[in-house]
Amino acid sequence: MLYKSASLFIIGTELTRGVIADKHCQVISSQLTQLGYRIDRMVLVPDDGTIESVLKDCIDNCDVVVLTGGLGPTSDDLTRSIVSSIAKVPLVRDQQSFDTLYKRIGERIWGANEQQAMIPLGFEAVPNPNGTAPGFRGFIPDGDRSIACVAMPGPPREMDPMFYNDMLPWLAQLIGHDDFSRNEYSTFLLAEAKLEELCKSVAQDDVQWGTRFQDLKISLYLVGGDEEKRERMAQRLRALVGPFLVIDGDVMPVELLTDVLKKEKLTISCAESCTAGYVSKLLTDESGSSSWFWGGAATYSNEAKKAILGVSEETLQVYGAVSGECVLQMAEGMNRLSGTDYSFSISGIAGPSGGTDDKPVGTVWFGFAGKGKRSQAVKVQLTTWGRVSVRRKASVIALILASRYIKGDALLDTVGKWQYI
Amino acid sequence: MLYKSASLFIIGTELTRGVIADKHCQVISSQLTQLGYRIDRMVLVPDDGTIESVLKDCIDNCDVVVLTGGLGPTSDDLTRSIVSSIAKVPLVRDQQSFDTLYKRIGERIWGANEQQAMIPLGFEAVPNPNGTAPGFRGFIPDGDRSIACVAMPGPPREMDPMFYNDMLPWLAQLIGHDDFSRNEYSTFLLAEAKLEELCKSVAQDDVQWGTRFQDLKISLYLVGGDEEKRERMAQRLRALVGPFLVIDGDVMPVELLTDVLKKEKLTISCAESCTAGYVSKLLTDESGSSSWFWGGAATYSNEAKKAILGVSEETLQVYGAVSGECVLQMAEGMNRLSGTDYSFSISGIAGPSGGTDDKPVGTVWFGFAGKGKRSQAVKVQLTTWGRVSVRRKASVIALILASRYIKGDALLDTVGKWQYI
Repeated sequence: MLYKSASLFIIGTELTRGVIADKHCQVISSQLTQLGYRIDRMVLVPDDGTIESVLKDCIDNCDVVVLTGGLGPTSDDLTRSIVSSIAKVPLVRDQQSFDTLYKRIGERIWGANEQQAMIPLGFEAVPNPNGTAPGFRGFIPDGDRSIACVAMPGPPREMDPMFYNDMLPWLAQLIGHDDFSRNEYSTFLLAEAKLEELCKSVAQDDVQWGTRFQDLKISLYLVGGDEEKRERMAQRLRALVGPFLVIDGDVMPVELLTDVLKKEKLTISCAESCTAGYVSKLLTDESGSSSWFWGGAATYSNEAKKAILGVSEETLQVYGAVSGECVLQMAEGMNRLSGTDYSFSISGIAGPSGGTDDKPVGTVWFGFAGKGKRSQAVKVQLTTWGRVSVRRKASVIALILASRYIKGDALLDTVGKWQYI
Repeated sequence: MLYKSASLFIIGTELTRGVIADKHCQVISSQLTQLGYRIDRMVLVPDDGTIESVLKDCIDNCDVVVLTGGLGPTSDDLTRSIVSSIAKVPLVRDQQSFDTLYKRIGERIWGANEQQAMIPLGFEAVPNPNGTAPGFRGFIPDGDRSIACVAMPGPPREMDPMFYNDMLPWLAQLIGHDDFSRNEYSTFLLAEAKLEELCKSVAQDDVQWGTRFQDLKISLYLVGGDEEKRERMAQRLRALVGPFLVIDGDVMPVELLTDVLKKEKLTISCAESCTAGYVSKLLTDESGSSSWFWGGAATYSNEAKKAILGVSEETLQVYGAVSGECVLQMAEGMNRLSGTDYSFSISGIAGPSGGTDDKPVGTVWFGFAGKGKRSQAVKVQLTTWGRVSVRRKASVIALILASRYIKGDALLDTVGKWQYI
């Protein structure tokens, strides 16, 4: 039988009452789409019996059902019994799941918890290292068809790893990816639509891709083909967008800088104008940041640039606050003040007002200074619009460029290759 | 007929392909739940024909269907024709919608766009001031029942206002809230579960409530009863949690401060330790902030506190960086440096490491200084856990207290009443 169309069932009364927002639909549907599945519907239902009839309605129309939630120990948690009822098989104890559960909660195991070790006969239990409820997978017979069925726990921190590590490879095999392996990359500063377009232009046969937006980066997954083809596609992408915007693995922009600082035991400080503290905040999101971060100045006004960093009145008059001269004085001033190994600065026009013909909204200057190093200033012209977006992108650029400055790169060359930001 | 159970249909292939995340389910389900509706299912389907059979399946089981999406001008946009097919009525041109559309896009109106002015016969068009597609509402006959049906455009910036302003009052009336009016409040620093518990304890008969988490605040909606009862409930809640944590209307924490600054033409600056730039960033989220914000210092290390703010080595040695003495010197140092009307400071233990018996994680000191004003320092002991949460709450507290300091309040009294943060 061909497995092609899939339906998602997200179970939880807290969802249908609007207490919490669903987090699974997008994760699951984007990954399955990427494998070649067509998602026919995604259904959110309460913890009551509703799910049974909805599920039955659905089984005639699709080849794969993916369920999340309803695997807990309370009487509301009906997923196991509903699947066993639809598959017309009894629930049986999975000994390995029971042993794991027993090891985890010991003597306190009782009837309700024990129920979590039950799965429909003929299904395969999938261990859950992050919670008490194992997932399961198998097939529901339906006339001459056989519907694939995957059930996972509801909490995202249990569902996400089980989905990526166990269920996705199984579903990949089902649709015909024999060798399911994939590469993950972190991309910065590129719009999702642009990334999609660029991926198309460098596509390698058999290699499929999917993207996921996560705060300050977009994750790119390459699936299918072989390792070499996937890596070649990433290389061609890097050649297009410039290096350092497509990084191996799951990396946040701030880690690009803090990894270098930690490794080489360096300290840093920063002076921000248009981003006004955003980069300082990012640099201290992680506990322990005091070992590399001295501090920063949110020198939003010209007066603050003069008072804290010693930027000269003449520079501000002749070149303006958004200029190479100004960011150099900011970075050097911060470096003198702090005595840190490195310092950087940001000054730009975030908009929506304040732009001129010479310096339109999206013009951002970055300055870098370090003990015994030649200072550098570079300008980036963002084509993005919107104050939020300019400030976010400027912060990410500062983090990337600071890490490259420490490595000794000529930053003008680096930003010269960034044609799509 | 009694209207009690509702289903949501969210239409869009970009959702079932996982390209974008759904934003409507939680908004609509939380509001309908609050009105007393039971949400039986929320279904996300692609733009193809799928919706027709799913919708038919559903109509036997629920009293109200709410649809979003599929109202655009392309052939993918099928909502109008599917509803008219299920209701067994023709599509007819709504003249007012057509005129509005004509006024908007003029001569460029053509067949496809014109289709947007068509609605099922007997339904009522609902104007869309933020897009080209009007919504509609009405009833689908089904034997001796009559299913209420509401259709809205998909983009959140079009859907949200139409839902809140036009559809929600209509659905409120349908379930028996004759006088649908409600009060909105913004609450700060309270956990959602705690807010729920407190609302229960001060409930007024007939008054129902709902909450919505939005970044740094939780919106509280009171519905039903009468204006006086709703206001009395809010007053009793204020008496419990302390004033200034339950504010009339839709207000972000940063606006509490910037509204005062703008109105009284005052300037401000800040010195942050544990929040390290977060408050500066919030204060500059809005364009035009240069007229009230001078700048800030993210003085994360002791060295930075000394170098930028002139905090004394003695203070740091004797009292430590997290102390009333230190935040006073930070605020006063920043005030001297900047010459702004007011300055404030934050220093605390964000964790997870760094706590002691005397100063556990969650201990945060705030300092306030102003030209010709007596400086004040106050301590808040947050019971919250987690670095992200401590930093977020500390930032919100600084904004609230700075606005109260400017008003001349004794801050010790203010924070003394905050027993649930």
